[in-house]
Amino acid sequence: MRNLKGKLDLCAINTATFGHREPLSCTIDRIARAGFGGVAPWRHEVEKANVAEIAKQIKALDLTVTGYCRSTYLPAATHAQFVANIDANKAALRDAATLGARCFVMVAGGLPEGSRDLSGARAQVRDGIAELLETARDCGVPLALEPLHPMYAADRAVLNTLAQALDICDALDPGRTGFLGVAVDVYHCWWDPALQASIASAGNAGRILAYHVCDWLRETRDLLLDRGMMGDGVVDLAAMRESVERAGYDGLVEVEIFSKENWWRRDPDEVLRICAERLQSVC
Amino acid sequence: MRNLKGKLDLCAINTATFGHREPLSCTIDRIARAGFGGVAPWRHEVEKANVAEIAKQIKALDLTVTGYCRSTYLPAATHAQFVANIDANKAALRDAATLGARCFVMVAGGLPEGSRDLSGARAQVRDGIAELLETARDCGVPLALEPLHPMYAADRAVLNTLAQALDICDALDPGRTGFLGVAVDVYHCWWDPALQASIASAGNAGRILAYHVCDWLRETRDLLLDRGMMGDGVVDLAAMRESVERAGYDGLVEVEIFSKENWWRRDPDEVLRICAERLQSVC
Repeated sequence: MRNLKGKLDLCAINTATFGHREPLSCTIDRIARAGFGGVAPWRHEVEKANVAEIAKQIKALDLTVTGYCRSTYLPAATHAQFVANIDANKAALRDAATLGARCFVMVAGGLPEGSRDLSGARAQVRDGIAELLETARDCGVPLALEPLHPMYAADRAVLNTLAQALDICDALDPGRTGFLGVAVDVYHCWWDPALQASIASAGNAGRILAYHVCDWLRETRDLLLDRGMMGDGVVDLAAMRESVERAGYDGLVEVEIFSKENWWRRDPDEVLRICAERLQSVC
Repeated sequence: MRNLKGKLDLCAINTATFGHREPLSCTIDRIARAGFGGVAPWRHEVEKANVAEIAKQIKALDLTVTGYCRSTYLPAATHAQFVANIDANKAALRDAATLGARCFVMVAGGLPEGSRDLSGARAQVRDGIAELLETARDCGVPLALEPLHPMYAADRAVLNTLAQALDICDALDPGRTGFLGVAVDVYHCWWDPALQASIASAGNAGRILAYHVCDWLRETRDLLLDRGMMGDGVVDLAAMRESVERAGYDGLVEVEIFSKENWWRRDPDEVLRICAERLQSVC
C-alpha cells in the first residue's frame, strides 16, 4: 500500500466537501494552495462558470481532475425524458473532456416519480449506459459507475452494489476497453459482505476508476448530508485502501464529505487542513 | 399467490406498529378484535408483563405468534459481554417457547462501540448463532435471521443481505433441520439486486420463517422511525409476496411499521383498519 505521508499529490478533494459556498475558481485555488494533487468539481458549479476557463485554471495549477460529478439521472417516466437525460449526459461528457477528467461519475438515478418498477429502472440504467459508452470513447473520458448505498435506491440510484455495477460493465464492455468501470466510494459500500470479492474482481478487470473516502458515523442523523470526516466513523479506511490498491488502483484518493451541520459550516481552509491530516494518518 | 381478501386470519400485526403506547394485553385484544390471525410481540413488553399470562391470553384468542422480537445483539467488545448476550438470548428463547412463537427473530447487532472490525463482528454473529441453535432445538423455536438494511450495519445489524444470512444457515445447519432460517422483511431487502435469487434459494431450503411488510417512503426523513404504510411507498408489495409464496412460504403476512411522526401518533384501531385495507388491496 502506498504511504500517503507527505504525498498530498496523491490526494484529491471533491468540491462538495465545502458545501458549494463559493465560486468554483476560489475553491480550486484553495485546494491547490493546500498542496493537494487533484480536484473533483460538480457540474452545477462548472456550468455556472466558463468550462474552458476552469479547465485552463486547473491545468495551470497542475491539478488532476479525478472525476467530473455527475451524470443526469437516467430512469425516466417517458421515453422523451429518457432521451433528454441521455443528451444531457452527452453534453456533460464533452465538458468532462474539456476539463481533462479522469472519469465521468455516473450516479444512476432512482425510480421515476410514482414508479415501483425497480427492475425496469435498472434496465433503463443499463440501456442508458450502453448509449453513453460511444460518446465516452469519442470524448476520451471513461464512465465510472458509482453504486450508491441502498438507502438511496428509491430516489437517487438503483445501482446499489459493486457486483451489480460490474455485471453491467462486463455485459456492455466485455473487451475491457478502459472506458467503462466503477467508482468505489467507502460510504456507499463499506457494509457490503461481497465487497472484497467485488473489489478484487473490479481490479482484475482494470475497472477501478476512482476511489472516494469519508466515514460512516455510527449515529447518522440524516440520510444524505451527515457523512463523517475520515477517522470519525466506523469504516476501517486503511484496510479499504489496501484492498483497492492491492487490486491495482493507482489513482488519487478523493475526499467527498456531505455534511450540512458540521463540515459545511466550517472554514474551508480548516476543512482542508483536517482532510490532509486524516488522509496521512487514518486513510 | 394466496388471495388475502377476507382472509385477515392470514395476516398478523407486529406490536411495534403502534409505538408501544399501551400494555401488551390491550394491544393483543385489539388485534384479535380486528380479526387478524396473528401477533408478533416484543420482549420489553412481554418481560414487563407475565409471560405465562400473555401466552394464555394469546391462546384463548386463537392468535398465531408469528415471531418473538427480538434477539439481544450478539457482537460484544469483551468475551464476558458476548457470553451475557448469549445467555440473554437463551432466556428469551424459553419465553418464545412459552408463547408458542413460530420463530425467534434474530437481529444480529452492530459493531461493538468503538470497533471498526466488521468481519470480526460478523464472525461473532455466526459463533453466537451456532451457540443458540441447540437451545432453539430444545425449545422447539426456530431462529429466524433477519438481515437488516445496510444503513443499520454500524449500530444494529452486521447481517445485511439475505444471501449473507443464508450462507450462515447453510454453514450451521446443513441438514436443514427447520430450526434455522430467515425473516424476509421488505423494508430491509427490497433494493437488493440478488433478492429474487436469494428468496428462491431460501425457499428451496425451507428457510423462510417469516414475512414482514411495510413500505419504503421515497422521502424517508429518519433512518429508523419513518417506515411507510403499505401502498404509500415504492415497494412492489404484490410482486414481493408472489416471490416469497412461489418459494413456498405459507405463513402469515406480518405488518411491522416504525413511524414516530405518523402512524405512532394515530389511534391504534384506525391503524389496524388501514393495515387491514392495505393488506387486502396492495400487498
